[in-house]
Amino acid sequence: MTAGPAAAGKPAAADAGPLAIICGGGMLPGTIAAKVEAQGRSVVLFAIRGWADPAVVAPFRHHWLSLARYGAFLRLMKQEGCRDLVFIGTLLRPSLRQLRPDWGAVRRLPRVVRAFRGGDDHLLTSFGRMLEDDGCRLLGAHQVAPDILAGEGLLGGRSPNARDEADIALGLALLAAQSPFDVGQAVVVANRYVLAVEAAEGTDRMLARIAELRDAGRIKLPRGVGVLVKAPKVGQDRRFDMPTVGPNTIDGVARAGLAGLAVAAGGVIVAEPQEVARRAAAAGVFAVGLAAPTGQAPEAP
Amino acid sequence: MTAGPAAAGKPAAADAGPLAIICGGGMLPGTIAAKVEAQGRSVVLFAIRGWADPAVVAPFRHHWLSLARYGAFLRLMKQEGCRDLVFIGTLLRPSLRQLRPDWGAVRRLPRVVRAFRGGDDHLLTSFGRMLEDDGCRLLGAHQVAPDILAGEGLLGGRSPNARDEADIALGLALLAAQSPFDVGQAVVVANRYVLAVEAAEGTDRMLARIAELRDAGRIKLPRGVGVLVKAPKVGQDRRFDMPTVGPNTIDGVARAGLAGLAVAAGGVIVAEPQEVARRAAAAGVFAVGLAAPTGQAPEAP
Repeated sequence: MTAGPAAAGKPAAADAGPLAIICGGGMLPGTIAAKVEAQGRSVVLFAIRGWADPAVVAPFRHHWLSLARYGAFLRLMKQEGCRDLVFIGTLLRPSLRQLRPDWGAVRRLPRVVRAFRGGDDHLLTSFGRMLEDDGCRLLGAHQVAPDILAGEGLLGGRSPNARDEADIALGLALLAAQSPFDVGQAVVVANRYVLAVEAAEGTDRMLARIAELRDAGRIKLPRGVGVLVKAPKVGQDRRFDMPTVGPNTIDGVARAGLAGLAVAAGGVIVAEPQEVARRAAAAGVFAVGLAAPTGQAPEAP
Repeated sequence: MTAGPAAAGKPAAADAGPLAIICGGGMLPGTIAAKVEAQGRSVVLFAIRGWADPAVVAPFRHHWLSLARYGAFLRLMKQEGCRDLVFIGTLLRPSLRQLRPDWGAVRRLPRVVRAFRGGDDHLLTSFGRMLEDDGCRLLGAHQVAPDILAGEGLLGGRSPNARDEADIALGLALLAAQSPFDVGQAVVVANRYVLAVEAAEGTDRMLARIAELRDAGRIKLPRGVGVLVKAPKVGQDRRFDMPTVGPNTIDGVARAGLAGLAVAAGGVIVAEPQEVARRAAAAGVFAVGLAAPTGQAPEAP
């Protein structure tokens, strides 16, 4: 699963014009754009102002766009001959008052307001339906670049031991139980004790918290115990907001003094898999992809 | 429920010798000791070194004790004529290597080690059984001083509105779903979005995190939205580790910019209820006790 673009196969949509990539923050939009281009399909990046990294989008054909400039976005899509789009990268939940909607967005305002009530899933699902009503086809990153998903088996570092495996099983079960509540997608379990549950703070801050609690003497476990477990929510629309890990996650796991990182195979994006493997080995932690338990079966890519 | 000692009634154990109070951190051990004395029963405090506050235990008959000096503790219990004991105050999970067990503890070491695997509930339940096997009777704080529990209805400040009530309902349901995993006892829900889930960090740090996320622009909700919801775990042994709120909790709720605090009536200890009410009113937040939903019904006090 971590092989080069050759392993990705030809996506069904390769002849449907250029692929629009709506770019949030982080490196991933660039990674995916390069993979799609390597498959022979052209891309047009829509970089979201305030989130996308100029250095990441610069090498590709791109437009800058403000969030909520939905009418302008639809016009550019038509102009560029795009119908398919993917949504890649981090996007912090904006406040309604921060958005300055254009006419295309204002016409849909009641829907937008409804979308903003409730959790992230609700927001994103509503947004996805709106796009499809307007003639776009929303794809998941895993559909345009299947090899970005974690495979099953060791992704880097040493193998998890029996204690790690018990912690992973507890973590996956907790994530499944929380799933209907649209909480985060990651927990930390150490020696069968739940150390942290991710919500609005995100994975990196949750890991930083564990390091702080350890420094403050609030966590008294020896180093090398505990696992960060990350999995998509049950029934999550995988066309956006796929949980993602990368080299930073490994650094955070190591700083938190944990044993390693476990992700649901086929359900979590691994940014820069070679660097993930290298840093895991260097830090003496593991990174492993696990077959999702019942109820978390990933979609076919 | 927030009335003076006169409302507490005579506990069944009033003629069973002095009550032993094992004291963790915070003010609560002193509060409870005073309430029990006001009922006419004498008390002996066992202050745990490193956790109990010397100023809190000083006014009462007390012994200092190291954790894991279990044999010494049993001897003192006999010497003082105590059979009933309550366990009050915060006690951070110690590491096994931090404990320097005496012979009484070493004999029970396999049990102790087993107790340390798994969550807090598991640890405490094992400890409780060990005490009972040694002829002690472990009581809950709510059994020796029933008026320390939150009652139903407004505890202070303004009334929650419809949005707050929806957030409270979601928070209680999430706590119930997490309950089998022995996670924390508190969550923060704002506008039906789960902002934070408490685990090893405790309620105060979780609230501080929300204030930080807000300052960092990661939470973009207007102030006055969101509720801290606190409830005991389903099936939790209420003889120790009862969730507790106090004036500090109100301060944390206000600093986090939340609308208020909701606790399961009969299932959460309110330390200094008058001060809680005063600060809630001053900060413009609410504190409310709610009938526990099905499956969280509190024991009769």
